[in-house]
Amino acid sequence: MKNTDISSIGEFGLIDMIKNQFADSKDNKNIVAGIGDDSFCFKSGKNNICITKDMLVEDVHFKKDWTTPQEIGRKSIEVNVSDIAAMGNVKPEYAFIGLGLPPKTSEIFIKNLYKGFKKACDKYEMAIAGGNTVKADKITISITIVGIGKEKVIKRNGAGSGDLIGVTDTFGNAGAGLALLYKYGTKHKYNKYEHFLISKQNNPKARLKEAQKISKHLTSLTDVSDGLYISVDLLAKDSGKGAEIYMDKIPVSSSLKKVFREDKKQLDLALFGAEDYELIFTVPHSKAKLLKKLVPHISYIGKIDSSEKVKYFYDGKEQKIKYSGYKHF
Amino acid sequence: MKNTDISSIGEFGLIDMIKNQFADSKDNKNIVAGIGDDSFCFKSGKNNICITKDMLVEDVHFKKDWTTPQEIGRKSIEVNVSDIAAMGNVKPEYAFIGLGLPPKTSEIFIKNLYKGFKKACDKYEMAIAGGNTVKADKITISITIVGIGKEKVIKRNGAGSGDLIGVTDTFGNAGAGLALLYKYGTKHKYNKYEHFLISKQNNPKARLKEAQKISKHLTSLTDVSDGLYISVDLLAKDSGKGAEIYMDKIPVSSSLKKVFREDKKQLDLALFGAEDYELIFTVPHSKAKLLKKLVPHISYIGKIDSSEKVKYFYDGKEQKIKYSGYKHF
Repeated sequence: MKNTDISSIGEFGLIDMIKNQFADSKDNKNIVAGIGDDSFCFKSGKNNICITKDMLVEDVHFKKDWTTPQEIGRKSIEVNVSDIAAMGNVKPEYAFIGLGLPPKTSEIFIKNLYKGFKKACDKYEMAIAGGNTVKADKITISITIVGIGKEKVIKRNGAGSGDLIGVTDTFGNAGAGLALLYKYGTKHKYNKYEHFLISKQNNPKARLKEAQKISKHLTSLTDVSDGLYISVDLLAKDSGKGAEIYMDKIPVSSSLKKVFREDKKQLDLALFGAEDYELIFTVPHSKAKLLKKLVPHISYIGKIDSSEKVKYFYDGKEQKIKYSGYKHF
Repeated sequence: MKNTDISSIGEFGLIDMIKNQFADSKDNKNIVAGIGDDSFCFKSGKNNICITKDMLVEDVHFKKDWTTPQEIGRKSIEVNVSDIAAMGNVKPEYAFIGLGLPPKTSEIFIKNLYKGFKKACDKYEMAIAGGNTVKADKITISITIVGIGKEKVIKRNGAGSGDLIGVTDTFGNAGAGLALLYKYGTKHKYNKYEHFLISKQNNPKARLKEAQKISKHLTSLTDVSDGLYISVDLLAKDSGKGAEIYMDKIPVSSSLKKVFREDKKQLDLALFGAEDYELIFTVPHSKAKLLKKLVPHISYIGKIDSSEKVKYFYDGKEQKIKYSGYKHF
């Protein structure tokens, strides 16, 4: 065996390696959704128990200079609730907070971080169920959320040919906010459009209510954490299907348009900018109008086909799109 | 507010700060065991779902030089299963593995780490339910285990006056192993007794079977992760009681006696050496014999009284014991 390091295998190589090793976990009949879905769900009597777990590391996922401790706390909870929302009509019930802290971390920082955790948990009527703290070199936040649902959970792999592909709101804002912070830092005098984009980066909101409202009509569902491009790919591939995406239909905010005036740049941010935490889903054509009544800010950006390829169109013409997202390793 | 850092508040100050802020999580009637117990447990139909979560950080909880990646993987699972065992007759069902990895981590290291996870999970017939990997400066392992039980969970706070205090096996081995590694490193030629102690540090085993066998007779239960002294204190305080501990009855291994010949040193390691992961419990006097039939390697080391103080005796005489354990911050 070659002693390759993980920066050369890449994140997806690493995930494949791990998936492989634990494929047999799928044999358990109580498991409703497993590796490859946004949360792990198992049956317990009439309930589906859904569990999500994510780790955020200082200077990788957040920078203390760019965001307040309260925002870090809130965001850590929101991004995990987003993974619960990605399973459909599930209520997040309990949050567990693991913290790795450098000994020099100030008491005020921790108090404000916890204020952020608490505010986000209160918003979802979720109890902070436990947590532990250990010494670490960088602030490390490991959140586990337990959700309980009574309806069928919606997985990534149920999209059918002809289904419409819908999304809950606009894309590219969070990535644009991050780009601004990278370019100008925090001392810069930002205008209100730029502020909006930065706030989308620092204060994302999970689309839990939307998921709960539309869940029972959906054939597949996931949240968009690593950019629309990757999420479309996952939905299509996991369902064994292909898709057509109409780029002119991808919704972008008026702030994004004001700050990044080029069409191409807007679409780049929408497709490859991470951390929008909007939902993407598929729904039979017959249900499309009903869904827009339930959640008016839904847009349809394409449809599922049986081609096993994802094709992008702009103004009716097929486009070559090359992945240009962020690599974790 | 003073801007104190956490190295001056200390770990227990930090826990108090956090506990305080989230005391209201106890109001939820589905919560069976919450903050202050080894696992968080909630009712779901007829099941108790128990969840434990722990984070291990390189150079804080393990050193790559002192232990193999497989051992690190196994230990990470065992210490979390130990927290499940500390709730009584609960079956660990699902494990979640969050990993923070420096980009230079070798593929072989990760494969062996996962081999360790997998071996320990197989041992407990537990499925690896999911996991995620993020970039980090130091190897960070965050494990969440979900256990399911049908019987009453055993908490820390149920000890009654007159109950005997029992433990599952010998103490001080893991701490002694760590002391040897600190003193002589890994290149040293250790004898078989020293090897035994080091293996207790690197390969702890959760006392799950024992917990499952004796659970229904117990009034309180916890696992000893930070030394016997702290665990006795927790059981007594959480139950609103006191205790008498007979130090001559604290079981120590023959290897510990061979390597550390002084009585005082042995007792120091047993009381303050961490990571033995034995169980400590209380049981009504009438059940004490039955328990020893179920688990022959049980010893009784003291009894609960109503004094609200923990007193230590050696050879019939009360001893002054000063806490001298490891501070996390």
